[in-house]
Amino acid sequence: MGDYKLLSKIKSPADVKKLNEDDIPELCTEIREKLVETVSVNGGHLSPNLGVVELTVALHRSFNLPKDSVVWDVGHQSYVHKLLTGRYEQFDTLRTKGGISGFPKRDESKYDDFNTGHSSTSISAAFGIANAKMLSGDQSHTVAVIGDGSFTGGLAFEAMNNAGRFNKNFIVVLNDNKMSISKNVGAFPRYLTSVRIRPWYIRVKHITERILTKIPVFGKPVKRFLQRGKSRIKNLVYKNTLFDCFGFTYLGPIDGHNIADMENAFSAAKKINSPVIIHVVTKKGKGYQPAEDKPGEFHGIGKFDIDSGELLSSHKGFSAEFGKLMCELAEKDKKVCAITAAMASGTGLNEFSKQYKERFFDVGIAEEHAVTFGCGLAAKGMRPVFAVYSTFLQRSYDQLIHDAALGRLHLTVAIDRAGIVGDDGETHQGVFDVSMLNTIPNTTIFSPTYFEGMRKSLSTAVYVCDSLAVVRYPRGGELYRPSDFESESIEYDVYGNKDGKNLLITYGRLFSYACKAKEKLAEMGIDVCILKLCRIKPIDSRAVEFAANFKNVWFFEEGIKNGGIARNFSDMLVCTDFNGNYHIKAINDKFVKQMSVNEALNMLKLDDKGMTDIISNEIKDNG
Amino acid sequence: MGDYKLLSKIKSPADVKKLNEDDIPELCTEIREKLVETVSVNGGHLSPNLGVVELTVALHRSFNLPKDSVVWDVGHQSYVHKLLTGRYEQFDTLRTKGGISGFPKRDESKYDDFNTGHSSTSISAAFGIANAKMLSGDQSHTVAVIGDGSFTGGLAFEAMNNAGRFNKNFIVVLNDNKMSISKNVGAFPRYLTSVRIRPWYIRVKHITERILTKIPVFGKPVKRFLQRGKSRIKNLVYKNTLFDCFGFTYLGPIDGHNIADMENAFSAAKKINSPVIIHVVTKKGKGYQPAEDKPGEFHGIGKFDIDSGELLSSHKGFSAEFGKLMCELAEKDKKVCAITAAMASGTGLNEFSKQYKERFFDVGIAEEHAVTFGCGLAAKGMRPVFAVYSTFLQRSYDQLIHDAALGRLHLTVAIDRAGIVGDDGETHQGVFDVSMLNTIPNTTIFSPTYFEGMRKSLSTAVYVCDSLAVVRYPRGGELYRPSDFESESIEYDVYGNKDGKNLLITYGRLFSYACKAKEKLAEMGIDVCILKLCRIKPIDSRAVEFAANFKNVWFFEEGIKNGGIARNFSDMLVCTDFNGNYHIKAINDKFVKQMSVNEALNMLKLDDKGMTDIISNEIKDNG
Repeated sequence: MGDYKLLSKIKSPADVKKLNEDDIPELCTEIREKLVETVSVNGGHLSPNLGVVELTVALHRSFNLPKDSVVWDVGHQSYVHKLLTGRYEQFDTLRTKGGISGFPKRDESKYDDFNTGHSSTSISAAFGIANAKMLSGDQSHTVAVIGDGSFTGGLAFEAMNNAGRFNKNFIVVLNDNKMSISKNVGAFPRYLTSVRIRPWYIRVKHITERILTKIPVFGKPVKRFLQRGKSRIKNLVYKNTLFDCFGFTYLGPIDGHNIADMENAFSAAKKINSPVIIHVVTKKGKGYQPAEDKPGEFHGIGKFDIDSGELLSSHKGFSAEFGKLMCELAEKDKKVCAITAAMASGTGLNEFSKQYKERFFDVGIAEEHAVTFGCGLAAKGMRPVFAVYSTFLQRSYDQLIHDAALGRLHLTVAIDRAGIVGDDGETHQGVFDVSMLNTIPNTTIFSPTYFEGMRKSLSTAVYVCDSLAVVRYPRGGELYRPSDFESESIEYDVYGNKDGKNLLITYGRLFSYACKAKEKLAEMGIDVCILKLCRIKPIDSRAVEFAANFKNVWFFEEGIKNGGIARNFSDMLVCTDFNGNYHIKAINDKFVKQMSVNEALNMLKLDDKGMTDIISNEIKDNG
Repeated sequence: MGDYKLLSKIKSPADVKKLNEDDIPELCTEIREKLVETVSVNGGHLSPNLGVVELTVALHRSFNLPKDSVVWDVGHQSYVHKLLTGRYEQFDTLRTKGGISGFPKRDESKYDDFNTGHSSTSISAAFGIANAKMLSGDQSHTVAVIGDGSFTGGLAFEAMNNAGRFNKNFIVVLNDNKMSISKNVGAFPRYLTSVRIRPWYIRVKHITERILTKIPVFGKPVKRFLQRGKSRIKNLVYKNTLFDCFGFTYLGPIDGHNIADMENAFSAAKKINSPVIIHVVTKKGKGYQPAEDKPGEFHGIGKFDIDSGELLSSHKGFSAEFGKLMCELAEKDKKVCAITAAMASGTGLNEFSKQYKERFFDVGIAEEHAVTFGCGLAAKGMRPVFAVYSTFLQRSYDQLIHDAALGRLHLTVAIDRAGIVGDDGETHQGVFDVSMLNTIPNTTIFSPTYFEGMRKSLSTAVYVCDSLAVVRYPRGGELYRPSDFESESIEYDVYGNKDGKNLLITYGRLFSYACKAKEKLAEMGIDVCILKLCRIKPIDSRAVEFAANFKNVWFFEEGIKNGGIARNFSDMLVCTDFNGNYHIKAINDKFVKQMSVNEALNMLKLDDKGMTDIISNEIKDNG
């Protein structure tokens, strides 16, 4: 690719400001090339970053980071920001072990004001920052940059409600890339469409009057901006909008690929002594044809071929299998509904959404609502299945307790990306869901290893369980399955010699690693039997009785130890005749940083090597 | 009080419908008398119910429950509904053990469509119900009744966004009792004020045009309603509002104490084939002077004297002590900030809110935002303390993990109502917070027994801890403190004979019960030492080493067993020379229903009697 003549010289935002206006288009081109080059190798979030190239340049030219603060919602669109804030040289390490993160990190750069990763937090965090500045007399500016999708999360509205009465400058940039629209997810995106498509008009007199009434001190510069705007920013509209109702002054819509227009708008916004929302319209994937054509696919993507835009690896994973099964269930049973929080594609529900449109509910990035809404469906006899990534289900803890389990409403939750997810790192690891759900009464949890177990447990969850029922499965596909492992049960399976001394207990995909460990240990003369749980809550008492016969028991768990299943098992084991040793290996009270799944499981000693080492060392020490 | 001539004859909503219009004012008077009479004895939510008497009557006259469905947001205003749906006879058992609940319960009545208790869930649940009906061809109506306060919760907006595109009838009643306004909590309440105070006007022609465009089929009846409205409902306004932006047809504001007006509006709303919001303005506490004067105090109240409106018991509890301490900290340190999610009074922050107005943040019923906002404050060097009830903190699980702990931002959370709360019942028990927080890395948790420990641990949380730090304390005040218990440490205390065989471990207020149990056991000749933890995460390893010397160890925990501290302690004990017996008594995977705190602790065997029985029986059995 390019030699990045301009980009390679940008060591800090000051260099962006110094750039000749004529050089900026070239800089933007270089940034896009660098983005495509790096993400094609490392994987990552491509189309969101291609869409915000000009917006990010304009922000860095208009504001003075790190004095001024910018909080990036979700943060997957912060690559451009990283390239412009001294991280160009390390950019090739993006999302790799020890490399720079795909999300803003305070400990990575002084230009990263707040760690993000989950949706809709930026206005809250930025408003906290703005208040801290106010209290300490700091006059610098604070900006939240949030997408139209993230705006469907309730947290964003909680923050708007709180911020709307602020009497200092506070800027929210609404990066409207129309992504939610095509997916048709709600009233707010439709509302934005109506704002975008209204005929552009500037009622200068009226506007000026209103602004002057609102902001007597800064009236003049804003008036100038508006008048200049008449010729220069033909799209500027200031009128009664949703955002006005929340106390925000609305500026927009503005072309998010026109840097001069954005700089003008930012400059005017800075002078308004109250909350301002700047509506910027961008094109997701802009500048790279395959991403423009399929912005959804290039949202988060693995390695791909730059010329063709084709993914270099593609495997049918649990998500696809789940989607297939959901279609089968829906075909047979008109009560089966699917719910997603803006993750139809990621959770494998695309086909379902086409075939069973009426029973498919994409509720927006709104995991809380998804659960309570599902409970409403269940209350009137439907069989709702909410498909969600493990890390995002954390948002629904209260609703799972209060709306689902407490009233014994029969909601099924299909948890995708359960366990270590790899390169998205610590904000996205699915390592809390088991501990979280384990605290909730009236809840059944299945954690199968293979498609077979997932199919069986999903059917059981939907048709046999009452109250809250959960099926969780990892990112990716099936792993190693020994040829003599026959059939996966939804309760538990025993694999190996039942009469030995050593027992390895695990669940989910770790069973594949356990089988490999068993083979390695056999080569070392150590015989190990495996107890594979599938239903992890409640634990089958027969499985505990079986385990009680062993002398040495190890429980390997791909999740947080506190609140985990290994501890429950131990508790139950104490009530039997068990008088052997019991060891737990799980994630002990720490976050797991970005690295590949294999690297992480290796580091955590949860892969076959880790299991083999732990068991063989223990046996060497204690026989 | 009254003999309830009319009310006592209402056996079901059908009887409400049959009533002569002239009798309705008398019925409302009787309902108010019954509410005041019962709540003055049982305690409960008074002013919300006094405010919705006419609204509830109008709903039952306009809709056909249980065919039509009504979901009450929060549900503390469902007493009137209960009185009109066959529960008049049992109403005296309100909020008592085995009696009727202070919240809607599906298993209590077929007229209760959805269990509520926490805020802002009604639109989500009702929209789920409405979709289930649509899918099964059921033409009946679904109504959510939500207060202006609850509308500040993000979940309500997630639901509005989702529901706004529905193409069937769906009704949201906004019960605007202006409660949030006086507390000045945000832009949305201010917006409602602006709607309420606009001069009333009906632009009939324009409205009719708009409605006819929107709803061609049902145009006529609505037009009739509007025209009739011109004379009868002078307050009806239909104009461009926030709710229009969400795709809702807005009707209002309507006098929430005029039953005829409301019936007209409901009748019109039923005919609109899309989502409708009916803005009803009510007076909280209406009809009982002390509650009208102090609607906040009478929101949720203990026993009181009907004539004077004076509380019959009042004690200075942990909330008050916390409030005092916060003022002391704020006085000395300008970086100390307080955050509440619409619970300034309940959490003891009233005085702080007056004295340190600039550093006091009431963010609305928005626990998620409260945490992320607090993290923003912390990111710029403030020392924020978020005071919240245990049960409502469940809403913030993701934000605590993702925004606070992961980035090691120094947010302090003061958890009030930790543990069993009593008569509000299962939706409000503070029994999940420890297990929930215990799963989160980089988190310190203190659970003191006395004011002394709370003061010490709050100072430590604010000044010594970094990252997320939590101090939790129960509802009410200090309980029994033995005269020879000297000083409460923030790590752990040992009380009793250190060289005995029996050790009782506990934390928080259970220590008071443990001390009484110790005395009872001593009378039976059984010597028990008590290990009282205050910092429960991380557990002090010296406390574990100490415990390892005992033969019999019991851990009593007022919280959910899965994920609790007792299990962590056991885990650590296994790594010592301990070879005694270890027993856990905690809340084992179940919800705790309404009853007094004493009754609940007794049932759970967590009071002095339970502890005494468990320990003495165990010793009798095994020596």
